Amino acid sequence: MPQDTVPLAGHPGDSIVPVILCGGTGSRLWPLSREGYPKQFWPLISAGTMLQETAARARGPGFAAPVVVCGEAHRFLVAEQLREAGIDGARIVLEPEARNSAAAIAAAAVLIGEETPGATLWIMAADAAVQDVPALRQALAIAAAAAGTGRIATFGIRPTMPETGYGYIEVGAPLPGVEGAQQIARFVEKPDAATAERFLQGGRHLWNSGMFVARAATLLAEIAAHAPEVLAAARGAVAEAVRDLGFVRLGPGFVSAPSVSIDTSVMERTQLAAVVPCEPGWSDVGSWSSLWDIAPKDGAGNATKGPVALLDAKRCFVRSEGILAAVIGLEDVVLVVTDDAVLACHRDRAQDVKRMVEKLKAAGQREATEHRRVYRPWGSYEGVALGTRFQVKKINVRPGGKLSLQKHYHRAEHWVVVAGTAMVERDGERILLRENESLYLPLGCVHRLENPGMIPLTLIEVQSGSYLGEDDIIRLEDTYGRV
Amino acid sequence: MPQDTVPLAGHPGDSIVPVILCGGTGSRLWPLSREGYPKQFWPLISAGTMLQETAARARGPGFAAPVVVCGEAHRFLVAEQLREAGIDGARIVLEPEARNSAAAIAAAAVLIGEETPGATLWIMAADAAVQDVPALRQALAIAAAAAGTGRIATFGIRPTMPETGYGYIEVGAPLPGVEGAQQIARFVEKPDAATAERFLQGGRHLWNSGMFVARAATLLAEIAAHAPEVLAAARGAVAEAVRDLGFVRLGPGFVSAPSVSIDTSVMERTQLAAVVPCEPGWSDVGSWSSLWDIAPKDGAGNATKGPVALLDAKRCFVRSEGILAAVIGLEDVVLVVTDDAVLACHRDRAQDVKRMVEKLKAAGQREATEHRRVYRPWGSYEGVALGTRFQVKKINVRPGGKLSLQKHYHRAEHWVVVAGTAMVERDGERILLRENESLYLPLGCVHRLENPGMIPLTLIEVQSGSYLGEDDIIRLEDTYGRV
Repeated sequence: MPQDTVPLAGHPGDSIVPVILCGGTGSRLWPLSREGYPKQFWPLISAGTMLQETAARARGPGFAAPVVVCGEAHRFLVAEQLREAGIDGARIVLEPEARNSAAAIAAAAVLIGEETPGATLWIMAADAAVQDVPALRQALAIAAAAAGTGRIATFGIRPTMPETGYGYIEVGAPLPGVEGAQQIARFVEKPDAATAERFLQGGRHLWNSGMFVARAATLLAEIAAHAPEVLAAARGAVAEAVRDLGFVRLGPGFVSAPSVSIDTSVMERTQLAAVVPCEPGWSDVGSWSSLWDIAPKDGAGNATKGPVALLDAKRCFVRSEGILAAVIGLEDVVLVVTDDAVLACHRDRAQDVKRMVEKLKAAGQREATEHRRVYRPWGSYEGVALGTRFQVKKINVRPGGKLSLQKHYHRAEHWVVVAGTAMVERDGERILLRENESLYLPLGCVHRLENPGMIPLTLIEVQSGSYLGEDDIIRLEDTYGRV
Repeated sequence: MPQDTVPLAGHPGDSIVPVILCGGTGSRLWPLSREGYPKQFWPLISAGTMLQETAARARGPGFAAPVVVCGEAHRFLVAEQLREAGIDGARIVLEPEARNSAAAIAAAAVLIGEETPGATLWIMAADAAVQDVPALRQALAIAAAAAGTGRIATFGIRPTMPETGYGYIEVGAPLPGVEGAQQIARFVEKPDAATAERFLQGGRHLWNSGMFVARAATLLAEIAAHAPEVLAAARGAVAEAVRDLGFVRLGPGFVSAPSVSIDTSVMERTQLAAVVPCEPGWSDVGSWSSLWDIAPKDGAGNATKGPVALLDAKRCFVRSEGILAAVIGLEDVVLVVTDDAVLACHRDRAQDVKRMVEKLKAAGQREATEHRRVYRPWGSYEGVALGTRFQVKKINVRPGGKLSLQKHYHRAEHWVVVAGTAMVERDGERILLRENESLYLPLGCVHRLENPGMIPLTLIEVQSGSYLGEDDIIRLEDTYGRV
């Protein structure tokens, strides 16, 4: 654990270690969120991405640097977004394969517990929204106090509407010795509309936010008791873990963990669960409809973002990433426009976006899972024009970024630098290209691109050849271990 | 008139001259149809564009080459689409400014009447759909016979639904001497829904299709009698007309014509109007809703075109020009997706698309009137990527096409040929560029691009500079008279 942290106000002892679960795919927020670049990496509410907002909520005096658990494919995205938000010292734990929340939490608890058995963990998803951070912090102090007495404390959100998309917690008696915390009578699955309405009126049911606070030792003991196979897999994975470029790469044993949620495998079984009722303006932002719920609206109930024009629209959610979106005479419709896919959906059917994504995936549509812009350790690229024998790409290389040393058998490339400076290696020769300079890379030449400068490099690549697939690339050497 | 035509079956005497009015903007079909490239130039129903389909309907034995009346801005589009469809010998009459149908028809009648006073004209809009061409041809033979007796014959379409978007013709007594034609009791403005329903049941009202057949001499006499100012302006414009690159460029006197429709200024006043009732499956395709009416549909009543995915959609019209469009749980919705604008509209509100376009125009949105792809006499170009100090364009030059000799003060250009062959003039030097070859054009150099080959040339242009507006172009010489 980093040494430069100070105790959280009101929390005696060690600082709190935020554990951010960052492995979701958010397919209900398609076409913005896709497997290749899911929900938690997008700015949905404010200027920061969901991950950045989440990390910022658990930062400052009293907090250790966060532990972020994510998939292999997103490791550079996580690192880059944390760096951009000024979050230092984070440990990024890579799952070889997603195994639901129990295994991810178990791995984090093992990792942290090995170093500091008494450490207190604050476990949270990377993709929820919180409007009142001070209220959340107050609840956290109570939860941490409960954790100090050996409890696993959840955050129970007081319902503001008869939501059927969340699980509920029925509160029990006050928790002795920890003011503001209560025992849990029982966990309740997602209710039907009538039950949800009853819960809202009754005042004894809270939304289960999926956030927890507990000591590492408590968590490990309870996982051992209720989900021993999960813990065994997590211990094996941490023992075999490889520290690599600042990442903690869990061992292959991780995939032997049963894919179960922490709720069903541990929380609903343990005797140690407690709940802290609170009203922090929390939402899991699980669908376009829930995003509409919390968005600012015009007089007719429309929430918009981006270049949007409305005529007699009512209670619509319209978001465009760039293309002009015009809506006439529609009510309760979600319209989301990206550069390669458009979704138009009744607001009551927002849950079915997931089904649409599955349908598109089954049909082999690239747009179901991948964006036009593709992220790489060194930056990103996107196709901007495609013909029968040519393709144009815009390539961004971050300062210090370095592509692999490579060659192609079926295409030649023309590079034009339009911003920044490029260092190009071509068949052993090193060439510096400045803005407005270009270079030709004949078919078969061995080449490498690098940004040696201090500002981002943007380059236009015109590919020409009989086959232009991404798989026509022979990697000879790679800084990021991709050879 | 061309000499290589033969009489229309059943029509004694001269061949019929098709007069195609091609000046509309079709703003109710936005975002596909825009001022810069309106409805009549798009394939809406079949593989051919509306103009091509219209011209094809009036082609073959019995027809002279068509006269097409259009705006200056669309002259090369008309020429290219006719050429592509194999329509030879067309005369393209250019209006210096749109002046509604009376003036356009008057100019065509003057032009044709000067050469062949007895010529029979078939006047039609370039943007209507006809499903049963033999039925239309049968009606045409009757209309031509009526025209031969000195009448102006309209085509009255038997209603198939209680349409409120069309004007109606109430039929009178049979026209003596011309079997199948009838006199006109009166013209009726667009009716309300109840009246339209009554018309549909009553069987005495027909849709006014806006197509006419008449001898040039008859038309000229009736326009002289009922709209003398229109005729005077048309005569002046033809007298001053300049024949230029195969176009008939009407003189500036044309703009003094009052902007009136042929219906209100002549047809509703003349004693010579007759109507030929017919059922050719005609539609003016005036809105997305009317396009839905005539489109083939799936079992749930959805009409789709392009990459579209539906889940529980009913009676929707969904069309995409390339971007994936997904619809969930919507009913009676129009969704039209182009590369830079999306329209989502209730099907009952299709008439209000025009209002949306006006609103966008007032807000200065380029997408209201211009497409991303811009057509020029030599071909077309489209922006594919835009940054702060760079821009990437895809340029297509048709065989024989030649851009102006030009220079730029604020940008340098990199050209990469990706298909075909380019002849480039750069500061007096002539350079032949083949596929996969590139050239640098420094800021201020005098240059010209030409396609000397037999296949289309495609070139990627990367512009780099501090100002990238289209107006940074000094034209020194131009084949198309644009200096």
